[in-house]
Formats: sequence, C-alpha cells, structure tokens
Amino acid sequence: MATKNAVAVKPLADRVVVRALEETEQMRGGLYIPDTAKEKPQQGEIIAVGPGKFDDKGNRVPMDVKVGDKVLYGKYSGTEVTLDNEQYLILREADVLAIVG
Amino acid sequence: MATKNAVAVKPLADRVVVRALEETEQMRGGLYIPDTAKEKPQQGEIIAVGPGKFDDKGNRVPMDVKVGDKVLYGKYSGTEVTLDNEQYLILREADVLAIVG
Amino acid sequence: MATKNAVAVKPLADRVVVRALEETEQMRGGLYIPDTAKEKPQQGEIIAVGPGKFDDKGNRVPMDVKVGDKVLYGKYSGTEVTLDNEQYLILREADVLAIVG
Amino acid sequence: MATKNAVAVKPLADRVVVRALEETEQMRGGLYIPDTAKEKPQQGEIIAVGPGKFDDKGNRVPMDVKVGDKVLYGKYSGTEVTLDNEQYLILREADVLAIVG
Amino acid sequence: MATKNAVAVKPLADRVVVRALEETEQMRGGLYIPDTAKEKPQQGEIIAVGPGKFDDKGNRVPMDVKVGDKVLYGKYSGTEVTLDNEQYLILREADVLAIVG
Amino acid sequence: MATKNAVAVKPLADRVVVRALEETEQMRGGLYIPDTAKEKPQQGEIIAVGPGKFDDKGNRVPMDVKVGDKVLYGKYSGTEVTLDNEQYLILREADVLAIVG
Amino acid sequence: MATKNAVAVKPLADRVVVRALEETEQMRGGLYIPDTAKEKPQQGEIIAVGPGKFDDKGNRVPMDVKVGDKVLYGKYSGTEVTLDNEQYLILREADVLAIVG
Repeated sequence: MATKNAVAVKPLADRVVVRALEETEQMRGGLYIPDTAKEKPQQGEIIAVGPGKFDDKGNRVPMDVKVGDKVLYGKYSGTEVTLDNEQYLILREADVLAIVG
Repeated sequence: MATKNAVAVKPLADRVVVRALEETEQMRGGLYIPDTAKEKPQQGEIIAVGPGKFDDKGNRVPMDVKVGDKVLYGKYSGTEVTLDNEQYLILREADVLAIVG
Repeated sequence: MATKNAVAVKPLADRVVVRALEETEQMRGGLYIPDTAKEKPQQGEIIAVGPGKFDDKGNRVPMDVKVGDKVLYGKYSGTEVTLDNEQYLILREADVLAIVG
Repeated sequence: MATKNAVAVKPLADRVVVRALEETEQMRGGLYIPDTAKEKPQQGEIIAVGPGKFDDKGNRVPMDVKVGDKVLYGKYSGTEVTLDNEQYLILREADVLAIVG
Repeated sequence: MATKNAVAVKPLADRVVVRALEETEQMRGGLYIPDTAKEKPQQGEIIAVGPGKFDDKGNRVPMDVKVGDKVLYGKYSGTEVTLDNEQYLILREADVLAIVG
Repeated sequence: MATKNAVAVKPLADRVVVRALEETEQMRGGLYIPDTAKEKPQQGEIIAVGPGKFDDKGNRVPMDVKVGDKVLYGKYSGTEVTLDNEQYLILREADVLAIVG
Repeated sequence: MATKNAVAVKPLADRVVVRALEETEQMRGGLYIPDTAKEKPQQGEIIAVGPGKFDDKGNRVPMDVKVGDKVLYGKYSGTEVTLDNEQYLILREADVLAIVG
C-alpha cells in the first residue's frame, strides 16, 4: 500500500487528491450511503494535499485536511484521473464535507 | 443515546452535522410544519460542528451553533450521509435558519 | 398576546422571525396591498431578531430592526415555520423593505 | 400635500420610498417617456430615505438623494406598496438613475 | 446649443447622461459603424456626469469622463430618457468604451 | 503606417484598442489558427491603452500591455469599431491572452 | 526540442502556455485517462508562465507552476493556439489541477 500512496502528483492551490474507498471498505468502516435522488456523498482517502490558496493578503490559507484523512465528498465533485493504473479524484478542499473515523 | 451522538465525524469549515428529529418528536416539541408548496423547514439536533471558515484576515469565523442545539433548516439543504446505520445531514451553518427551544 | 411573542426561537446571523398580520389588521392599520402581477409586499410584526452577521473585520453588523417593529416584506421572501401552532416567517433582514407605523 | 408626504414609513438600509408622479405632472415638468421596447424610466418624488447600507468598515454609506428630490427610475424597479390609500414604490438607491429639475 | 446641454439632470453615482450624435454627425467625425451581428457601438456627447460611486473605503471613485467628451458605448447599454423634448441616454461609466476625438 | 496608429481614441479603464492583423500578416508571423469548434484566438496590434482600472485602494492597476504589442485574443471578445475608415476592436485587458513575437 | 520551447509568447496575468503531451507520451509516463462521461483531464508541459495577476493590494500573486512542469488540466479548459506550426493551449493557472511526475 505504501507504493500506492507514493504516486507523484502535487495538487495546486486548495486541491486534494483522493483515492476512492471500495464499497466493501466502506461497509467495514460502518458507512452506508443510501440510493436516493439526493447527491450521494462518497468516502475516500486523501493521498496528496495542495499548499492552500492565497488569501487577499497574499498568505496561504492553511489546509484543514492531511494525507491519510478519510473524507466524505459529493458524488459529482472534482475530476477523475488515473495515475499508475489506479483511479484518483482531484477535489477542491471546499468540496470535502467532513473527515470520518 | 450517548453512543449515538459520539459518531466519529468532523465537518470541515463552517459545516455542521445534524440528526433529523422524528416527526413524533417534532410534534411533542410543539413544532408543526405545514404541507405547502413553499420550502419546508425541518428540525434536527446538531451532533458535530466544524471549526468555522476563514475570513479575509485568515481568522476563523466563530460558529453560532453548538453540539446539542435543536435547529431549523430548509428541507432541501445539505447532503445526507449514513454513519453507523443512522442517517445524518451535513449542512453549512448559513443553511441553519434558527435555534429552537 | 404576551405568551404568543415569547416563542422560543433564536434566528441566526441576520435573520428575523416575523408574525404575519391578518388582512383585517392590515386594513385597520391603513395598509392595502393591490392585487397586481408585481411582487406583493406583506406586513408583519417582528418577534425575534438574530445577532447580525459578521462583516469582513469579524464584527457583527448591527440589526436595524427590533422586536415589535411592524415591517413590510415581499410575498415570496423567507421560509414559513409553525411554532406552538402559530405560523411564522423567517426572513433575512435584507428582505425587510421598511418599518411602518 | 404636506399630510401626503408624512406617511409613517422608514425604509431600511439604502432603500427609498417614492411617490410616482402623474403623467400630466410629467408632461408639465417637461419629461416625456417614449413608448419603445426599451425599459421605460419613470419619474417620482422621494418621500422617505433609508439610513444607508453598511460598508465593509461597518460605516453607513451616505445617501445621495433626500426627501423632496424628483428622480428617474426604471419601470420595473422596486416593489409597489399602498399606504393610507396612496400607492408608493420602495426602491434601492442603486435603482435611482438621476435627480431631475 | 448651450441651452441644449443645460438640461437639469444630475445622474447618481457613476452614471453619465449622453446625447446621442446624429448619424450625419458621426459620418462627419469620421466614424462609421458597420451593420454586423456584433454589438454596435454608438457615439454620443456627455452632458452630465455623476459624482462617482463609493469604493470600499467610503471614498468616491473619480470619474474618467467629463461634460463635453465624445464617447463610444454599446448599442444596448443604459436607459433612454427624454428631457425637454430631446432624447438622452443614462449610462454607467463602466459602459463607456472610449473617448474619441 | 504612422498616421494609421495615430487614431484619436482613448480607451477607458482597463480597455485597449486593437487593430486586427490581416491573415497574410498572421501567416508571415508564423501563427496559424486551426478551424475547430473551439473559440478561435485572433492576433492584433495594440494601438491605444487605457489608464488601468482602480483597485480597492483607489489606485490604478498598471496595464501589462503597451502600444505596439502584438497580442492574441478570443474571436468573440470585445466590441468592433471603425475609426477613420479602418476597423478596430475595443477589448478589456483581461480578454488579452498573451503577447506574441 | 530546445527550439520548440523557445516559442516567443508571453502569457498575461495568471495564464500559462501548455504543449499537450502526445497519447503515447502519456502512456509511457504511466498516465491513463478513462473514457467516461466526466470531464477528461489532460496532460501537458508548461512552456511559458505569466507574471501572475494582481491581488487587492496591487501585488502580483506568485505562480505555483514553472516552465517544464508536467501538469493535468481539464479537457475543455483554455484556448488553443498554433504558434510556429505547433499547437499550444493557453490556460489560467486556476485551470491547472496538479503537477505530475
């Protein structure tokens, strides 16, 4: 698993790279997402974190998530990428709803 | 009930996690929501509160709600999640209309 | 009437809770709202006032209305709630047009 | 006419209350508004002025119009209200185009 | 022509009042506007200038145009008014493209 | 060519006036724009530059382009004008993509 | 390859010029982009970087990418240009998702 997370990608500004958790992992972790018409949140693990965006003063806004955090995010958030044959998601931190576990 | 509220979820920025109150609980508490075409507010209890978002100065904006508050919010606000087999709602504080009771 | 206004609801930020005035009360108060295609303003009494929203400096913006004010607001503004069997409206102060009387 | 203008209405923030001028008054004052597909400006007299909205520093932005000013505004601006059997318009100052006369 | 420009209208904030130049005047001045599907600019003379809008500090933003300037503006910008039987246009300075001549 | 550039037009704020380069000139300069469904950039020479817009402090934001620069811009940006029988384009600096050559 | 990157183009503000990587190059670099309905990210090499846009204080916001960086960006981001018979893309830095490799 260590090599998996060591994928060489550096998200810009306030973006994070997330590896989606498999549904079986999600069940083991106690999270179940109902199949409704509402936007379905998803669970994933953060594998890379951007440096934060600049505020109006020219300072970086610190990021509230770190590598290894398990997070919830909306199903239609972000952009899918595949790096080293594994699929990832690039999200803005603002699209991360909560840290779980 | 103590274990119920001890769900391990940390909302980010100005988000809160809310456990919706059952309709019978709502009636006992004296709140009745009419069935009109207007957006229907809902009542719930806050079980987790984010740290607040950053203002333009890089300081956290303090949150006006705390764990245990019973709050009103619009029916279509936020994102539903199920944690430990119970359903919750993740809202931005701006979507919380009022504290009741 | 004192018990009526003592409903236990604390609006957040720049929101107010308004009790709509009956049409007969509106006529007695000298206000008549014509039935046109335009947005129809409504008259009500403010029964609860939020603490004000935060400005960019992290200070509360003071509210210009207080409990007891009779106010005009647009017909489609805000969210209807029923507390203790009476119907109220939760509005942002920005949706209050004027204080009457 | 003095009693007419003494209507008890206090507009909030940067709003003004305007009494629309009759078309005959408009013609006497030398203003004629052509019947085109463009938004038609209207002429009225300001009968009440709000205290001004708050700027980012928490100070009131001073109002550029005062009671008695004859002003031009767009036909579809604002909200119509009838107070003491006379019809008025509640506008934001930003919807007032110019002072005439 | 002096009486023409002395029309009693004071535009608010960053607005200007413009007298559209006749097409013959436009041709004499060397300007020709082609008949394409693009937004067609128009030429006019500024006859009144507002005091400027307030910036975030509560200071007036100075106006870059003055009475007498011949300016280009988009065909669908602003609001037409007729004062003393002559037609004018009320524009925001931001809708003025350039000063000509 | 000197007289051509001496057209008497002063763009306001952050606007520039651009003389579009002929397609033959474009080919000679090594630039070719493919005929796809995407927005087609165009090449032109800047013949007039505005003073810059005001920032929140009331200071002019300096312009990054100057008279004589050859620039790329999107096909549907700006407003076409014809001055002294030659066609020009008035653009905001924000619509200028890059300086070439 | 040195001459290729020496194309004479200076992007303005926070824009960058990107040379898209061929699909074979992408496969060799270990990146594969699946054919889904989602926005497909693309990989390219940065060949020119703008000076950064101005913040509210009138200072340049430093750029987080530099010439030579391999970056991911959305398929529909930016504007295509062809300079010296090679095709490039002009993007805002905000449209660059991450630096790879």
